[in-house]
Amino acid sequence: MTDKELKSFIDLIEPVSEEAMKKARERQITLAKPPGSLGKLEDIAVKLSGISGLEIYDPRPCGVTVFCADNGVIEEGVSSAPKSVTIAQAVNMTKRLTGMSSMAKYFGDAVTVVDVGIDAEYDCPKIIDRSIARGTGNICKGPAMTREQALAAIETGVEMAVRAKKQGLKLLGCGEMGIGNTTTSSAVLSVLTGLEPELVTGRGGGLTDEALEKKKKVIRQAIELNRPDPRDPVDVLSKVGGFDLAAMCGFYLGAAMQKLPVVIDGLISIVAALCAFRLCPAAKGYMFPSHISFEIGYAAAAKEIGLEPYLDLGMRLGEGSGCIPAFRIIEAACAFTGGMADFKGASINDDYLEEIRKGDHYTV
Amino acid sequence: MTDKELKSFIDLIEPVSEEAMKKARERQITLAKPPGSLGKLEDIAVKLSGISGLEIYDPRPCGVTVFCADNGVIEEGVSSAPKSVTIAQAVNMTKRLTGMSSMAKYFGDAVTVVDVGIDAEYDCPKIIDRSIARGTGNICKGPAMTREQALAAIETGVEMAVRAKKQGLKLLGCGEMGIGNTTTSSAVLSVLTGLEPELVTGRGGGLTDEALEKKKKVIRQAIELNRPDPRDPVDVLSKVGGFDLAAMCGFYLGAAMQKLPVVIDGLISIVAALCAFRLCPAAKGYMFPSHISFEIGYAAAAKEIGLEPYLDLGMRLGEGSGCIPAFRIIEAACAFTGGMADFKGASINDDYLEEIRKGDHYTV
Repeated sequence: MTDKELKSFIDLIEPVSEEAMKKARERQITLAKPPGSLGKLEDIAVKLSGISGLEIYDPRPCGVTVFCADNGVIEEGVSSAPKSVTIAQAVNMTKRLTGMSSMAKYFGDAVTVVDVGIDAEYDCPKIIDRSIARGTGNICKGPAMTREQALAAIETGVEMAVRAKKQGLKLLGCGEMGIGNTTTSSAVLSVLTGLEPELVTGRGGGLTDEALEKKKKVIRQAIELNRPDPRDPVDVLSKVGGFDLAAMCGFYLGAAMQKLPVVIDGLISIVAALCAFRLCPAAKGYMFPSHISFEIGYAAAAKEIGLEPYLDLGMRLGEGSGCIPAFRIIEAACAFTGGMADFKGASINDDYLEEIRKGDHYTV
Repeated sequence: MTDKELKSFIDLIEPVSEEAMKKARERQITLAKPPGSLGKLEDIAVKLSGISGLEIYDPRPCGVTVFCADNGVIEEGVSSAPKSVTIAQAVNMTKRLTGMSSMAKYFGDAVTVVDVGIDAEYDCPKIIDRSIARGTGNICKGPAMTREQALAAIETGVEMAVRAKKQGLKLLGCGEMGIGNTTTSSAVLSVLTGLEPELVTGRGGGLTDEALEKKKKVIRQAIELNRPDPRDPVDVLSKVGGFDLAAMCGFYLGAAMQKLPVVIDGLISIVAALCAFRLCPAAKGYMFPSHISFEIGYAAAAKEIGLEPYLDLGMRLGEGSGCIPAFRIIEAACAFTGGMADFKGASINDDYLEEIRKGDHYTV
């Protein structure tokens, strides 16, 4: 994919239908409950109507696509987990043995594992091989990748969203596996938001104070050396990002182009979503948050896009793990929208309905 | 049920097993993820082990029991919804046409509807008739009920928890339907916490500023007139509570006695849970929160018990609606606990495992 092709592709993405959302909002008011009393569940249902044009959306089946890649920056010691964990957990995901994939198995969600740059030899045919290179460069010494590689990773993300639609999935989720990727994510987030690395860098799986200071220093150094252009998300991704981040960015764009709802997981996922949002603000209409990640950068990225997460679970696992409970929240929203009686069907009298319509009196 | 019988019953409630929780915590550390990275989902799994004594708990099938009753205080005009909504929605729940019950139908959760004091004639055999009286007294003019009636309602709650266990339910939830019950709940909460009515009284389904002021005044007046004893939750429930609140309090105690996990919904549910907690602090070990209700009193009650909700959805519907998505969160916790590989099974090398065990280095 060239820059020009990316631009043409983005031009294909349509905003969600304001008209369908208006109709859905009107329909919500006819349902037998105090208006707005199902809170964000009502907003979810309205947003799904905007995406699909349907009054009631059926979000099944759901599926998570996980982009796996290694990051050269780990030679700086920003992660004590060895690189080998990336491939080990990618393989384990295909066996549904990891945190996210074991939950996905329970609920019957599809899991797709994609190698976009794992630095390992392996034999696992269930991993889709779209490897761009065996890991990125060390961002402390140079760019993570070339611009061409970043565009190729974005294209892979788009391809996987297209594949998910062909599989018949109605609700997508996005995840990653890649040792070192909270470092690259915080670097990208710092550049895109202008926030100091100190404000968007967290402890990952549990860094000591000393190791956290080092991680912040590494991020600052990588940004100073590579000088990414904050107005050009592809430049930022290629210079201080990772193959996983770039592919996820493409996945969000691909979902939006095909009018499919897509759920964001934690820090890494939302940084990729922020890249997609900067490339194409209309893509936001197709994005659903899941949980407030424990990682401190999450909140800044969510605020920047304008998304409010549904779950407060203190999670920081990655893999797309937050998507699995969020799928259920979205299913719940579709369930009541499709299953509730309206006031007439609920045998609630007309005077009362009139009060409700005035919208300023009802209390239970 | 007499006071003495209630005391004897409470004495039967055993605290959750600290030993089983310690073992479960140790087992969590062996699973192939950064320790603690699944946040509250790990805490849920540990708590379920403390309740059940099992390493891995299967929470299916789940079910919500809804206690329905009318409240005499509505003659003060604290709710513009007519009393008839209580019976209409109780019937609609049996048909799975309400917000909670339509979501329950989708996920296959059981719904049990119990009349503990609906003020209406009706013909609906699916509603379990345990009516104590046709609505409570107006708490602005006298007590809501006698102490005997409060104890009878608590007993009905216990009975329904026993019934749920007999039905084979493994995870319970509690809900209510009763026009006027945010008023009684805020009154009970104010007495139990000593917080001024102003601080724990919200707009319910959408009161105007004027109506909200009236609601606060009514609550203050009810407390001043009835002078409930804050050290005696049964006295508080009988004087300014409702049949639904008292029955829910009994339901939480019944769940704890039978070692069954039980999910709390919004304001009314958590005020009833606070009553149960005050009667029997050990009952807390069996309680699971669901969502932060939009009603302002919720946070005060949750803090008082020491529970942190999982969902932030801006909901304020009642009926036990928050239990349905929370069941899924709890299922997710059980799914990863039962389905994940440990480090050995995940083929992650021993040196790394050693690092993880030290617990201060891992970051992804």
